Order: sequence, then C-alpha cells, then structure tokens
Amino acid sequence: MLKLFYTPGTCSLASHIALEEAGAAYEAHRIDFSKAEQTKPEYLAINPKGRVPALVTDRGILTETPAILAYIAQSFPEARLAPLDDPFEFARLQSFLSYLCSTVHVAHAHARRAARWADDPAAHEAMKAKVPQNMAACSDLIERAMFAGPFVMGENYSIADPYLFTIASWLEADGVDPARFPKILDHRNRMAARPAVAKVLAVVQS
Amino acid sequence: MLKLFYTPGTCSLASHIALEEAGAAYEAHRIDFSKAEQTKPEYLAINPKGRVPALVTDRGILTETPAILAYIAQSFPEARLAPLDDPFEFARLQSFLSYLCSTVHVAHAHARRAARWADDPAAHEAMKAKVPQNMAACSDLIERAMFAGPFVMGENYSIADPYLFTIASWLEADGVDPARFPKILDHRNRMAARPAVAKVLAVVQS
Ligand SMILES: N[C@@H](CCC(=O)N[C@@H](CS)C(=O)NCC(=O)O)C(=O)O
Ligand SMILES: N[C@@H](CCC(=O)N[C@@H](CS)C(=O)NCC(=O)O)C(=O)O
Repeated sequence: MLKLFYTPGTCSLASHIALEEAGAAYEAHRIDFSKAEQTKPEYLAINPKGRVPALVTDRGILTETPAILAYIAQSFPEARLAPLDDPFEFARLQSFLSYLCSTVHVAHAHARRAARWADDPAAHEAMKAKVPQNMAACSDLIERAMFAGPFVMGENYSIADPYLFTIASWLEADGVDPARFPKILDHRNRMAARPAVAKVLAVVQS
Repeated sequence: MLKLFYTPGTCSLASHIALEEAGAAYEAHRIDFSKAEQTKPEYLAINPKGRVPALVTDRGILTETPAILAYIAQSFPEARLAPLDDPFEFARLQSFLSYLCSTVHVAHAHARRAARWADDPAAHEAMKAKVPQNMAACSDLIERAMFAGPFVMGENYSIADPYLFTIASWLEADGVDPARFPKILDHRNRMAARPAVAKVLAVVQS
C-alpha cells in the first residue's frame, strides 16, 4: 500500500488530495515539524532531503511534489487527473506544476525558511519583507496568464488543482489578500467544497 | 518546426542538448541578457515570466525546464530519453528534474538574482555568501544519494543527464571545486565529449 509522509500546512497537501481524488489505497503518516521530525535519522532514511512530501511505493520512495502528482495521475489513469495521451497537454500541465514548485513555493519559503539562503538575521527579515510582493506577483501571473477555468487547466480537473489550492491557502499568511485574485479565490472555495478535499483537510487538521 | 529560446550560460542548455540528442528538427533563437531582451514586450509575449527557456511548438508555447525535457522525451520516443512505459521509473526521473529545478537551480540563482527575494543590497551579499555552501550541499546529496551511474538514472542516458551537466557547469562560478564530487565531475567530462553536447556548446558559445 502507498504511504504518504505529510505535515499539516505544507505542500504535502497537494499529493494528499491527489491520492484521495485518485481513489488510491494509501496510509498517511504525519511528520511533526514542531518536534523537528523531518531532520531525524528515521525520516532522513526515507527522504534524505529532510522534507515532506515523500511517497513510499512498493517499488521505492518518491519525493518532489510535481513528480509525485504525475505518478499518481499515471498510476490511476481511470481517475483522469492528467491528459496522459497528449504530450503537449501533459507538458502544459507539467509546466504549471513546475512553476508552482520552483517559483511560487520558493517565493513563499522565503518567509519562514530564509535561513536556507543566508546566515544573517537582517537578511532573513529583508527576505520576509518581500514575500507579499512576490506572492502577489506570482498570483497575478497565474490569474492573468495561466488559469484557464473552471479548473486550472480548463474543463478538466487535474493534479494542478490540488497544487494551486494548497499554495493559494498560504496567501493570507504571506500577506496577500486573496480577494485581489478572484479566479484563484473562487477556485479555492470550490476546491474546499469537494468531498475529497474536505476529507483530507479533516484528517490533516485533526 | 520547434523553436527554442535560449541564453548562453543558463538552464536553457539542458533543453537545447535534449533537442539535439532527440534528433529533433528545431531552430535556436538567442535571447541576449546583456540587452535585457528577456524583459522586452516581444519576449514577454512568448514567455510572460521573462525567463529562458521557452519552446515554441505548433500547438503552443512551453516553459519550465522539467516540462520541456519530459515533452521532448515523450515527443521523440525512439530517442529513449526517458522510461516512458514505467510510471515509477518515470517518476524517479521527474523527481530528479524537480530537485534540480526547485532546489539546486534556485540555490545557484541566489548569487546573481538575489534581488528577486529582497530589496536590501546587504541581504543580496548575505545570499551570495551562502551560495558555495548550498551548491556544495546539493552536489553532495546528488553524489551520495541520487547519482546511479554511469548516467544519472543508471544504465540509460536520459533527460536528467543534460540537466545535471548544465547545473554542474556552474559549480566553479558558484565557488565550489567540482573535484570534491568525483561522480559529477566525471559525468560532466563524459557529457562534454558527446557529439550532441559539443555541437550545442559550439553554437551557444559562438
Ligand atoms: N521541491 C519540494 C519541496 C518540499 C519542501 O520544501 N517541503 C517543505 C514543506 S512545504 C518542508 O518539508 N520543509 C521542512 C524543512 O525545511 O525543514 C516539493 O515540491 O516537494
Ligand atoms: N524554473 C524555470 C527557471 C527559468 C530561469 O530562471 N531562467 C533564467 C536563466 S537560468 C532566466 O531566464 N533568468 C532571466 C532573469 O532572471 O531575468 C526553468 O527551470 O525553466
């Protein structure tokens, strides 16, 4: 059985929702950041990067949200979570995932994880101060140039939807008023109403 | 015909090499950072992010290195640049691409592009100062836990190889002695000797 290592409030939510939407049989195992469990030898043996998510499969362990999401879509084709038979549409989807992972998530991480990129506490404050501006700029680009509607990629729900939902749920904490981005906010509300999302949130927030 | 927008010395090299290895018919169009061409309206109409690479296809435009690389592998299956029929092995490959994109490339970008994440010049210096440490830590993880050999993913050459080659070519400029990472350095030397790589480098450096 698949086993997902997750932490509440993190990017692992995207993979968690995708597993639920796929109808996968899986266990979810919580990693407690307040106890620094992600840095303990037990967890580093699972993911040497010391991050969530990690997905344990019977073939081995996978990390990185875009890779896990595409793996779920390919492993459960009947759930239709990606345009698997069209390399161009699949690439458009993957481009969105990669943008969230390499630019938007990274912009967000400069608020609480600035110590990754500098040692000086004054630099951490300077990075934190720019997070609202960067998260707003990313949201603006998504709203203007990427979001097709009604779902991220258009008519069909896909693995891009839980990933955007996850990152959009950080906007208030990142100092951005989501009301500035009506498509993203409406999507967030519609996502929260999906049974799979509500079920995962109930587990994660318990 | 496919058209790649590239800039010498950047991550676009990975997609450029992959096109060549795939035997694709493509044109390469240079974007000159010294003239800030990536920020001009003409280029923003192609890639509103103002970055390279961008790949123009007859279906539309693709951005983001991991998405472009997977697209090339799927569009030219006879070139065998990815394990297309095995979702787990494909996910392992995609996990490596995502790590390079979201962590290693981002660590590198803090040297010259620190202004993305803070406004204060002192913070830029603090970020730059940590780049050698972060690039060495990433290289260490790749060398220790990810690089299978003789190619990145094992016996078969894949789209992971030009991507690692591209990022490994930045190590000296990032203050890291590649001799500390013998597998990565040996891979870099073997990659440079491949005809496709030599051909692309000759074009890019001309
Ligand atoms: N590129 C990775 C990033 C994973 C990541 O940074 N996860 C964060 C939570 S959102 C984490 O585990 N942070 C723990 C730490 O930095 O100690 C992905 O997309 O899965
Ligand atoms: N996540 C993107 C990053 C693209 C990117 O940052 N490209 C850099 C060159 S390596 C760039 O175009 N920089 C121009 C700028 O920042 O103005 C990818 O992997 O393709």
